[in-house]
Amino acid sequence: MFERVALIGIGLIGSSISHATRRKGLAKEIVGSARTKSTLDTALKLGLIGKGYASAAEAVQGADLVILSVPVGACGPLAAEIAPHLKAGAILTDVGSVKAAVVRDMAPHVPKGVHFVPGHPIAGTEQSGPEAGFAELFDGRWTILTPEPQTDAAAVEKLKDYWTALGSKVEIMSPQHHDMVLGITSHLPHLIAFNIVNTAEHLERVTDKEVIKFSAGGFRDFTRIAASDPTMWRDVFLNNKEAVMEMLRRFSDDLAELKRAIEADDGDTLFRRFADARAIRRGIIAAGQDTPAPDFGRAHG
Amino acid sequence: MFERVALIGIGLIGSSISHATRRKGLAKEIVGSARTKSTLDTALKLGLIGKGYASAAEAVQGADLVILSVPVGACGPLAAEIAPHLKAGAILTDVGSVKAAVVRDMAPHVPKGVHFVPGHPIAGTEQSGPEAGFAELFDGRWTILTPEPQTDAAAVEKLKDYWTALGSKVEIMSPQHHDMVLGITSHLPHLIAFNIVNTAEHLERVTDKEVIKFSAGGFRDFTRIAASDPTMWRDVFLNNKEAVMEMLRRFSDDLAELKRAIEADDGDTLFRRFADARAIRRGIIAAGQDTPAPDFGRAHG
Ligand SMILES: NC(=O)c1ccc[n+]([C@@H]2O[C@H](COP(=O)([O-])OP(=O)(O)OC[C@H]3O[C@@H](n4cnc5c(N)ncnc54)[C@H](OP(=O)(O)O)[C@@H]3O)[C@@H](O)[C@H]2O)c1
Ligand SMILES: NC(=O)c1ccc[n+]([C@@H]2O[C@H](COP(=O)([O-])OP(=O)(O)OC[C@H]3O[C@@H](n4cnc5c(N)ncnc54)[C@H](OP(=O)(O)O)[C@@H]3O)[C@@H](O)[C@H]2O)c1
Repeated sequence: MFERVALIGIGLIGSSISHATRRKGLAKEIVGSARTKSTLDTALKLGLIGKGYASAAEAVQGADLVILSVPVGACGPLAAEIAPHLKAGAILTDVGSVKAAVVRDMAPHVPKGVHFVPGHPIAGTEQSGPEAGFAELFDGRWTILTPEPQTDAAAVEKLKDYWTALGSKVEIMSPQHHDMVLGITSHLPHLIAFNIVNTAEHLERVTDKEVIKFSAGGFRDFTRIAASDPTMWRDVFLNNKEAVMEMLRRFSDDLAELKRAIEADDGDTLFRRFADARAIRRGIIAAGQDTPAPDFGRAHG
Repeated sequence: MFERVALIGIGLIGSSISHATRRKGLAKEIVGSARTKSTLDTALKLGLIGKGYASAAEAVQGADLVILSVPVGACGPLAAEIAPHLKAGAILTDVGSVKAAVVRDMAPHVPKGVHFVPGHPIAGTEQSGPEAGFAELFDGRWTILTPEPQTDAAAVEKLKDYWTALGSKVEIMSPQHHDMVLGITSHLPHLIAFNIVNTAEHLERVTDKEVIKFSAGGFRDFTRIAASDPTMWRDVFLNNKEAVMEMLRRFSDDLAELKRAIEADDGDTLFRRFADARAIRRGIIAAGQDTPAPDFGRAHG
């Protein structure tokens, strides 16, 4: 499908793209660069890339597909660095969890004749780095592409076919709408998870040891999400402020209502709100977006 | 270990106790009652109980261990009903997720000569009913017992041995401390999960269909917890108000601080808070309280 794919950033997402690309033979050659030498060495050792470069500027040369898989805040500076070295006709994309800010930061640097098609695979784990990736990560998940209306349709189609071949389903929407949707389905859940773990760590009346011991009652699920990379998430919140703030406001209003119901011994309101919440889980399982197995299929014992 | 165990309430927890009891041959006979005839029939059909009774009063007769596995709010009325029928020397326990309120509601009914030892296994799934149980549910988890100091030590020891044989580790603490610990490790996480799902369902700018489709970015984890039984959770919040309110207050204070950091573009504070949150996950995995596998070991693809 591509002659030469350049991976700029080879962490969880970059390495998973390499695995899934090789699984289907979608590129003649995969090359790449990372920020640190140690990541580059690991990527070469694992065969994630055939050639490694010390700089992104070198890595993108001659590539017909360039994928930035770096924290959102690094996308703008990297676009500026690689712009003069991009091949005419190349497709440039990214995988950042925020889209409007990435477009704002990258688009001004993209040279004429290069097709910039921002993207975001809605798939991941709490782990990071080049050893965390695997070929199945995108299977059955959705990837959102957010091209501007004037973007070359053939380039968008080709990237769509590529993500489909990586195992993903593809949806196209505006960067602004993407950021709103992900604000509720990903960013707010992460903020809440980080926050509840922070709260638990700073109690005087319950020790950290107790929190750990008795975490199987629900808390441990939040700690998995809160184990995600702090740099990545710092960049997400700094770059999707508006949507996150809107979702947070609604979340807080709803929480205040639940709080009042508890204070007023209003069991009917609590029951109704809790029962309502069950429906969406059924929808997620029916849509194949989570396992029907109890407790995520976690091993017991 | 016991001659006759009476299970009052045979849902997820009651049925798991039956499976684990039979796995190790800990009772000569298991009998029981449920609220509805259909649950009782299912329990008999699955062999969870050898004999089923139409009322709890009948079921407890002659039992040397009586276990209430019903919503917390049902414990008081059931204790009143069974009290005149309990055998002298029997151990009476429960599995309710709140302890101080259960002690308040049950203790006044317990006849002299019956040993009341409240309990709570910190183990569960989002499913309920007699078909949801399995023998391994308690393996490696903790069960908390909250006997009053004057309780017969031999009875406490015997119940401790029983939970150990069911696969659990056992810790003893006061009902009040239990409610504080579970307030942060279980009740607040559930309240937050119910709430975020409610918030997501009532957005105008993001449809339910989009929430479902793009839920793999974190949101789906919360929907699993929010799929838990609404009756059980209504009773938990109505009966552990004080601790839940304290935890909620701290959570909200911490969240306000994160919000201010986002508004002020204070990336350092965000990074520090997110990085802090990783440590406790490592502790949970080291303590064997969750799987080290990425994404809970969820099947991908
Ligand atoms: N993790 C998820 O669940 C997930 C899901 C969907 C999308 N995303 C998005 O995917 C992107 C990458 O995430 P990831 O999970 O793959 O992260 P990761 O495993 O931490 O990998 C990040 C990669 O970016 C490089 N990098 C970091 N800072 C850089 C900088 N300032 N300049 C140049 N390169 C830099 C790192 O190089 P070194 O290793 O040499 O430091 C590493 O190769 C992020 O934008 C994130 O929002 C993540
Ligand atoms: N689920 C968990 O993760 C978990 C973990 C630890 C502790 N707990 C505690 O364990 C207890 C039972 O939970 P569960 O998950 O096993 O619930 P479940 O699966 O819903 O089962 C509840 C059982 O209680 C019976 N019941 C319900 N209301 C009753 C009433 N008013 N009077 C008499 N019986 C009644 C039900 O009978 P019918 O089926 O006939 O209605 C059913 O047999 C709760 O106190 C809960 O707090 C739950």
